[in-house]
Amino acid sequence: MPPYDRAQTTARIFDAAAEEFAKHGIAGARVDRIAENASSSKALIYSYFGDKESLFFKVLQSRMTELAAAVLLQPDRVDQFVGDLFDFMTSHPDVLHLVTEEAMQYPPDGSPDFGERRAHYASKAAAVATAQAAGSVDPDLDPAFVVLSLMGLVSWFFAAPQITMMVAGKAPDLRSRYRAHLVELSRRILNPR
Amino acid sequence: MPPYDRAQTTARIFDAAAEEFAKHGIAGARVDRIAENASSSKALIYSYFGDKESLFFKVLQSRMTELAAAVLLQPDRVDQFVGDLFDFMTSHPDVLHLVTEEAMQYPPDGSPDFGERRAHYASKAAAVATAQAAGSVDPDLDPAFVVLSLMGLVSWFFAAPQITMMVAGKAPDLRSRYRAHLVELSRRILNPR
Repeated sequence: MPPYDRAQTTARIFDAAAEEFAKHGIAGARVDRIAENASSSKALIYSYFGDKESLFFKVLQSRMTELAAAVLLQPDRVDQFVGDLFDFMTSHPDVLHLVTEEAMQYPPDGSPDFGERRAHYASKAAAVATAQAAGSVDPDLDPAFVVLSLMGLVSWFFAAPQITMMVAGKAPDLRSRYRAHLVELSRRILNPR
Repeated sequence: MPPYDRAQTTARIFDAAAEEFAKHGIAGARVDRIAENASSSKALIYSYFGDKESLFFKVLQSRMTELAAAVLLQPDRVDQFVGDLFDFMTSHPDVLHLVTEEAMQYPPDGSPDFGERRAHYASKAAAVATAQAAGSVDPDLDPAFVVLSLMGLVSWFFAAPQITMMVAGKAPDLRSRYRAHLVELSRRILNPR
């Protein structure tokens, strides 16, 4: 199979698998349903990606790579991080289901690419530290804690949509108003005093 | 069975069920394992609480009732909410697994006690509005959004412990330092400017 076709096939399988894992969890996910929804075959999925657990981690890794590419935390634009992350989660609603499924099924250091992901977040904390040295972010804050709490502000809105609906309702403009609220909170948190 | 015994039996079953649902999800949970861990019987569990799905919602409701009783949002002490919620989540680590399982398995308005929980959060938003009128919380903020975002700040730390470990490490004093960080962020968010 030419490389281009393989990339397309992989993308189709990952999309179908992300949906299946987000809906049914790892235990309930069925590879034959993923194959059907991806117009592929069980045999091909096993041969490309290994067993169901391996496939789960490859799909999660692929989504995390997309997220890392789409949502930058740049030292001169730390205040844009929350809005960019909110927009990514809006257009990729399955990502946080994969993350909470990982949390339920594995110990906190159980991811096969724990080290790489740790390094990725360290680079984000380093960007915050650079912004602190440049005077645009309050130097009293712990840079890694800033990263984690900005992610928490955004993620909870999507990870527990039933709580979001109970607390904030379901008006058509809820997302845009909550996005603006979070950008404002981020500004209050980050600004040097 | 006298009422006191029934309350004790219920508490044992709910503890065992909360652990089982948090570990295995609703689909993977086994009522015979819950019965064994609660020193009870499948027949008694079905007769008290109905099917597995009913049991899940009763356990979740019970945990939410405990949470509501333990973590108040009082108009004259809004700034204590984040720390109190953090302490409850620390001592009840299964609660957020139940909430994320609910998020994965049901539509956002699919909870049998959606209306009661909505009313509960409305009372929390009303407490924020009272604090705004009294001048202790910035009146420019949406009260319901304040409730949701303070909950998000705390919840994400516990709901995705693998992300927490990747971003913030696992030092023995991580919890106490992160708790202090969140209390500080809450102050920055709430304070009138």
